[in-house]
Amino acid sequence: MIKMEQFKNRHIGIAEADKQKMLEAIDLSSMDELIDQTIPSDIRLKEPLSLPKALSEQEYAEEIAHIASLNDIYTSYIGMGWYDTVTPAVIYRNVFENPVWYTSYTPYQAEISQGRLEALLNFQTVVSELTALPLANSSLLDEATAAAEAATMMYGLRSREQVKNGVETLFVDENTFPQTLAVLKTRMYYAGIEVVVGDYKTVTFDKPFFGAIIQYPNGNGNVEDYTDFTERAHKAECKVAVATDLMALAILTPPGEWGADIAFGSSQRFGIPMFYGGPSAAFFATRDEYKRSMPGRIIGISKDAYGREALRMALQTREQHIKREKATSNICTAQALLATMSSFYAVYHGPEGLRNIARRIHSIATHVSEELKGMGYKQLNNSYFDTLKISLPEGISMQDIRDNTEMRHINLRYFESGEVGISIDETTNVYRVHELLAAFAMTAGSSKEYLLEELPVKSGLKESQLRKSGFLAHPTFNSYHTETELMRYIKRLERKDISLAHSMISLGSCTMKLNAASELLPLGLAGFQRIHPFAPLEQVSGYTQMITELEEMLAEITGFAATSLQPNSGAAGEYAGLITIASYLESNGEGHRKVVLIPASAHGTNPASAVQAGFKPVTVASDANGNVDMGDLRVKVEQYRENLAAYMITYPSTHGIFETEIREMCRLIHEAGGQVYMDGANMNAQVGLTNPGTIGADVCHLNLHKTFAIPHGGGGPGVGPICVAEHLVPFLPGHPVTMSTDKNTVSGAAYGSAGVTEITYAYIRMMGAEGLKEATEAAILSANYVAEKLKDSYGIVYRGARGRVGHELILECRSLKEVSGITETDIAKRLIDYGYHAPTLSFPVHGTLMIEPTESESLAELDRFVSVMNQIHEEIIEVSRGEYTAEDNVLVNAPHPQYEVTADDWDHAYPRSKAAYPLPFVAENKFWVNVARVDNAYGDRNLVSCLCQQ
Amino acid sequence: MIKMEQFKNRHIGIAEADKQKMLEAIDLSSMDELIDQTIPSDIRLKEPLSLPKALSEQEYAEEIAHIASLNDIYTSYIGMGWYDTVTPAVIYRNVFENPVWYTSYTPYQAEISQGRLEALLNFQTVVSELTALPLANSSLLDEATAAAEAATMMYGLRSREQVKNGVETLFVDENTFPQTLAVLKTRMYYAGIEVVVGDYKTVTFDKPFFGAIIQYPNGNGNVEDYTDFTERAHKAECKVAVATDLMALAILTPPGEWGADIAFGSSQRFGIPMFYGGPSAAFFATRDEYKRSMPGRIIGISKDAYGREALRMALQTREQHIKREKATSNICTAQALLATMSSFYAVYHGPEGLRNIARRIHSIATHVSEELKGMGYKQLNNSYFDTLKISLPEGISMQDIRDNTEMRHINLRYFESGEVGISIDETTNVYRVHELLAAFAMTAGSSKEYLLEELPVKSGLKESQLRKSGFLAHPTFNSYHTETELMRYIKRLERKDISLAHSMISLGSCTMKLNAASELLPLGLAGFQRIHPFAPLEQVSGYTQMITELEEMLAEITGFAATSLQPNSGAAGEYAGLITIASYLESNGEGHRKVVLIPASAHGTNPASAVQAGFKPVTVASDANGNVDMGDLRVKVEQYRENLAAYMITYPSTHGIFETEIREMCRLIHEAGGQVYMDGANMNAQVGLTNPGTIGADVCHLNLHKTFAIPHGGGGPGVGPICVAEHLVPFLPGHPVTMSTDKNTVSGAAYGSAGVTEITYAYIRMMGAEGLKEATEAAILSANYVAEKLKDSYGIVYRGARGRVGHELILECRSLKEVSGITETDIAKRLIDYGYHAPTLSFPVHGTLMIEPTESESLAELDRFVSVMNQIHEEIIEVSRGEYTAEDNVLVNAPHPQYEVTADDWDHAYPRSKAAYPLPFVAENKFWVNVARVDNAYGDRNLVSCLCQQ
Repeated sequence: MIKMEQFKNRHIGIAEADKQKMLEAIDLSSMDELIDQTIPSDIRLKEPLSLPKALSEQEYAEEIAHIASLNDIYTSYIGMGWYDTVTPAVIYRNVFENPVWYTSYTPYQAEISQGRLEALLNFQTVVSELTALPLANSSLLDEATAAAEAATMMYGLRSREQVKNGVETLFVDENTFPQTLAVLKTRMYYAGIEVVVGDYKTVTFDKPFFGAIIQYPNGNGNVEDYTDFTERAHKAECKVAVATDLMALAILTPPGEWGADIAFGSSQRFGIPMFYGGPSAAFFATRDEYKRSMPGRIIGISKDAYGREALRMALQTREQHIKREKATSNICTAQALLATMSSFYAVYHGPEGLRNIARRIHSIATHVSEELKGMGYKQLNNSYFDTLKISLPEGISMQDIRDNTEMRHINLRYFESGEVGISIDETTNVYRVHELLAAFAMTAGSSKEYLLEELPVKSGLKESQLRKSGFLAHPTFNSYHTETELMRYIKRLERKDISLAHSMISLGSCTMKLNAASELLPLGLAGFQRIHPFAPLEQVSGYTQMITELEEMLAEITGFAATSLQPNSGAAGEYAGLITIASYLESNGEGHRKVVLIPASAHGTNPASAVQAGFKPVTVASDANGNVDMGDLRVKVEQYRENLAAYMITYPSTHGIFETEIREMCRLIHEAGGQVYMDGANMNAQVGLTNPGTIGADVCHLNLHKTFAIPHGGGGPGVGPICVAEHLVPFLPGHPVTMSTDKNTVSGAAYGSAGVTEITYAYIRMMGAEGLKEATEAAILSANYVAEKLKDSYGIVYRGARGRVGHELILECRSLKEVSGITETDIAKRLIDYGYHAPTLSFPVHGTLMIEPTESESLAELDRFVSVMNQIHEEIIEVSRGEYTAEDNVLVNAPHPQYEVTADDWDHAYPRSKAAYPLPFVAENKFWVNVARVDNAYGDRNLVSCLCQQ
Repeated sequence: MIKMEQFKNRHIGIAEADKQKMLEAIDLSSMDELIDQTIPSDIRLKEPLSLPKALSEQEYAEEIAHIASLNDIYTSYIGMGWYDTVTPAVIYRNVFENPVWYTSYTPYQAEISQGRLEALLNFQTVVSELTALPLANSSLLDEATAAAEAATMMYGLRSREQVKNGVETLFVDENTFPQTLAVLKTRMYYAGIEVVVGDYKTVTFDKPFFGAIIQYPNGNGNVEDYTDFTERAHKAECKVAVATDLMALAILTPPGEWGADIAFGSSQRFGIPMFYGGPSAAFFATRDEYKRSMPGRIIGISKDAYGREALRMALQTREQHIKREKATSNICTAQALLATMSSFYAVYHGPEGLRNIARRIHSIATHVSEELKGMGYKQLNNSYFDTLKISLPEGISMQDIRDNTEMRHINLRYFESGEVGISIDETTNVYRVHELLAAFAMTAGSSKEYLLEELPVKSGLKESQLRKSGFLAHPTFNSYHTETELMRYIKRLERKDISLAHSMISLGSCTMKLNAASELLPLGLAGFQRIHPFAPLEQVSGYTQMITELEEMLAEITGFAATSLQPNSGAAGEYAGLITIASYLESNGEGHRKVVLIPASAHGTNPASAVQAGFKPVTVASDANGNVDMGDLRVKVEQYRENLAAYMITYPSTHGIFETEIREMCRLIHEAGGQVYMDGANMNAQVGLTNPGTIGADVCHLNLHKTFAIPHGGGGPGVGPICVAEHLVPFLPGHPVTMSTDKNTVSGAAYGSAGVTEITYAYIRMMGAEGLKEATEAAILSANYVAEKLKDSYGIVYRGARGRVGHELILECRSLKEVSGITETDIAKRLIDYGYHAPTLSFPVHGTLMIEPTESESLAELDRFVSVMNQIHEEIIEVSRGEYTAEDNVLVNAPHPQYEVTADDWDHAYPRSKAAYPLPFVAENKFWVNVARVDNAYGDRNLVSCLCQQ
């Protein structure tokens, strides 16, 4: 039969004919030969993966539409951190549906990221101004983990006195969302920090706390006055972090004005669909003095080489990839795409629009409260923004209410203590209010009829609770209030950024593969978007089916027994994997095992995560070939035998090499009673050919946003599930609301960023076992092809035992620097002039570039990239030959911004054409930047992270 | 109550505060005052429009999803010109969901349209190579109207001899799709051309035909051998046009190889959803020698001012706006967006991919045919590509088959003669084949089971029928076969084009208003996409509801009794409106009335449409103020009183003026027994304030793609419904398949481009009566504001009786030319350097620019545009003062392409900065073109309209 179109042939960049050409170029005749030379035979899979038959794109579209239809869309009044919201269509279309926004990378290369940097700066401005705290970051994973970050940060800010006195206790108010409490408990438990949960009104500071976490409005929806508490806390040297709600802060006195040190929360209701729990962006703001302790990424304003204003990520030296085990947070990926969308939501509505939405929500809540009182219900919140807590009259059971609301496709919050909760949101309209009231009236036997009419303006807030201060006065928030204006503003920013829609992004370790449109289109289905994570199970059969199948497929791919989709990033996955090990060890009475061995070449997140999970990281040296020094490993295993908890190993290594001793490493660790944690960063080189289970690991995490086609979104969302062997299954993350245990809860939602896991589900369903394997092979082939083409100019730092690289390669740049003074950074910046994003810079080896072509690039693109790299090499040689000076050459002056190349005057020793169009293809499709090289040091010295500070 | 967000405030660009500023600038204090001064009081509406309450965007999203769910998606084997198809997700996302592609304008300004011009050139190449005819246009409205265009073209190509001998008969083969026949009959009837429908095999040429139309494969699906027929026809001086199927031509001998003079058809099955009939792109190809007679737009390769290759629309002097009543076609809008998508479909699949799809379809059809024969069904097509015609065995009724297939959600074609038709398409997979066969087996009482397995490769075609020639060998069709490559190719083209996502497009008469995302998002719903236009009525309740409501709302807005959505463009609407009048006159025994009076200022389509409808256009002069010369009108009415059929009037006039005598004009016409046809081009200035019914017209057309928010798509789709007064209702377009009469059928589908009418439905439902009225007011305010700001520099050519312009204004450029030599074209090209699309050039007044800001632009954008226009004025003055020569100034050299501004050398008398960044805002968001001014004459002299000709 003539085959229907197969998705794998669209995803994989290398056509069959090109495959042969590439194999020939590396002196091989078959793919099998290459794989045999690359991956040790003792870890190769014996059987193909057992996965469902691959679907065509069309078949998948029909299948997934059916699955989405199995989710029932109920009007949600559940609240608890998730609220239905109106995603402005202009933002949905121009950002969420736009590959430039969703396939771009974390903005490490500032010059080709000015668009999303501006959007994220806007996000920080929104957070900063609404919370009234001067410093905000550009998002965290979710509200619950942000709480844990706040706790850790306050812990790190303890005074010397406190440290000396062993102040190790955190106070958390009892009226905090259960998922926030659960994540806090998990994180504090493994960090060895005591948590006291109590009533902020009555707590004394006799027992010293280093920090306190409260919620505003609180978990029941009541708006508390924390002024007195905060004063008392500060007097006791206890810092105060507050979980809060940006929408409420449009009309409530902001935390910064009543003394909070930290404010955090979720920005989901700023235009992000609930997506059964995620993704959406958490926010985090604090006082200026704590800027070096704040977790997450900060966007700051700096200047470029010619003194023009330019944006970039600030204070990067705080990050885990620099600080490793000294990092106070392991966060890499955040929620950039969602933060961007929420920032545009604020830009679109502006201060007045936000205030109106907040007032409207509050007004409706007040109206509902009054009407319910009139029917005999008792509303327990004496002061609220959007949330009512209702105790039922005598004779009415929770089930009565539930029957009558569910009949109308309405979900409420049901407290274990018997009350019901109602959270009003932006989508609540007159019709819905009447439906809601009718359900309550029917239950109470009231005969009052609720006709469709305008609702009155009402407020139950006291004057003292109301926000007096203005916010978002900057023109950005006051200029783009029509669709045409916002569309053009979004476009203007989009045009500044390089993404996968422009050219290959060859970032080693980051796997910037295709994010196919058929994987992403179903995210538009209402059946996926408008589902609350705490909706009753019987309403979410579609999600349940998809999640269950995905968990099983990922377990099959990794060779493990089970999967948890809960962690919201790779780093969160590392953490979750490690505490799974910790729980297992504890359950065996081996809780004393605290040492985690980590190769020197590991990602900085590994040691940072280990510390966060309460472990003590110990480094294992590398040998001359960049592999784990087996001698040193044996020594360390022996040395820590009694306390050895785990070994964290990336495979293939961060050097891109399939180390041949991997099974022996696993054996050594197991024999010493330790567990093997496999970092899934390089899983793209394993899928279908080998897997962690076969290799002998006990647990691994996966980066669905790398190996499994979820786009990077300019720095998030990420999804970092963990897969574990049978013995670890009982210790997988729980959840306080929707699972049987809250042990090891690591995210606010049971399935983390459930919404975007559909992308991975799509990828696997359409690739099938054969496609996945072919993709891995193609990725390895492409890396070896590029290595072959660049080996003579740059040199390849590491190779495997039989001379092959894995799925990525490290280019030597240090010798070129010696002869020319040109650094790897100069090369990275010069690539921008050619329209390319730089490879990974100085990781894992300083002074090098790491290239990962992925399987999605075509031979034509690889050849183009190779020609660019070799041309840059020529340019370096020109400098080394003295043809250009060290101060004035195309490399140190790169990138050459549009304003320079088009200026009336030109002062360089080389012509404009050499600067801007070094190869003919560049001129045909020139990607212009309009900032010269960005000055990071200046920006860090003069941190400006909010538009209002300008 | 605090209001929910209102869509109108997002659509209309002018904020309340800005409205006041703008009114002040024109010395007024209220909008009412402005409208009173602009629109004659005797035609103002007395009551607000009676339309449904405006919905918010969120409410509309829910409502329309519900409506879409009322359409039942059946697997369609109906065929007859519409086939289910796989729209590659990468094309859907990156083109159909991308505002740059869908909001761009017809590429009259070649320099900022190189992207879509390339896509359309690709389309022409696909058509040309698949049909094996060297010259193709860049799309027509649909297959049925393309047939009529072919007939008209052949008629126009008659030899002098034939003209002398009165050869006025067209032969049409009886096995042509019924809708094609119906449109042909309509068009030929009014053109006075006789149609003979017969059997091509037996027809003799004793009666002379100027042309013949046949179908290949024919209307039943049979692949006929027309070689002999074509030879016979040619011998008899009869040209041969063939309706054909691009997909079939991938494996069948193409018409160009067996002698056809013209080939046309639909490219819908190249990736365009069926959308209940439209839109999709028709194609049209012919011999090179007929290039000046070919209808539609042709994209050609030319060169720019510096000799570099550049694309542009060729042979524009053939078009109706130049040739007016001498035009052989009234076509303006085509189906650019759909042609673009279909071209990318071919680029993505490439020749081998297309061949595979075609082979697969044919193989399945063969398999089904054989299986059905085995069950006792008789397959009547002796040779077929994808379509079977099945006669049922004794004892089986059509209803039996229908019951058993509909039970499985399968639609077949049901011939009136009792056979059933099955057309296989790209989406037919193994599962569907088995479902289909099972239904037939069940009906026939066969016990054979159809298990899921691979289908065998089969073919029933004779070797002589198979295509031997290759096609699409150009690299463009052989390089972008992975999603990554195609995504980047699309992006590369996108980056060359200006659209509404970039800046205001102030084209007078074209109303480039916002096309809001919430209007467009629902087009992604499967319930709208996968519906065949001939699906049984009970399956299309959603479409029926939407169409009915839309027809009613449009009738209310125009003040008429009924609406037909059938015409696929404004020009098609004009034609439909005119033949409605013709039918009415005929029915009253006044068929002799053939004169249509048309003001001199009218769009060229008016006279062209009048001729097409069999009328004789007579021009009415304009007076010194640009208004209709009432004296001349009276004279002409008197002169033609006995034969006066109609008066075609644009209102406000094409000069943008609300002429005060409009009611008197209507009275005069009616009194003389004529009908008043109101051209809806300027309806954007009427909605909610006045309307054709109130004014006194009898019929009007609307441009839904102008006034009612359907995007222009780079030159289509358009939708041109007509609304008529009560007495004309009986004469509205019929349809041979789905309506009770086929009289006056003007499109292949009963509701034309039903799919995109959802956009207009959305627009009206969300704007509501108040929003629509406010939009009209804002449009008029903006035009008057811009007129005020430019009156001193350029001067305004025409104003209304009380000094106001309507919704657009004509800028005087002739006096500037006199003093400086700078032409209106120079101004248009110079605007590109500032990042703006030019206003309408030299229409309706030569040597001027017509500006229509629309209601969607903000005051900030209007001010920016004004500052640009005034800066350009300054630049012209500099030339007039002799500061720059006539040969070397920023205007005559405009646009300045990137390659020039960034070149090593610079030879102009002015600096680069003056060329590229004449105002500061330009530098911040520079839109680069990379071709200098395009040489049209060169391209016309050396027509290259296909990649293969290069």
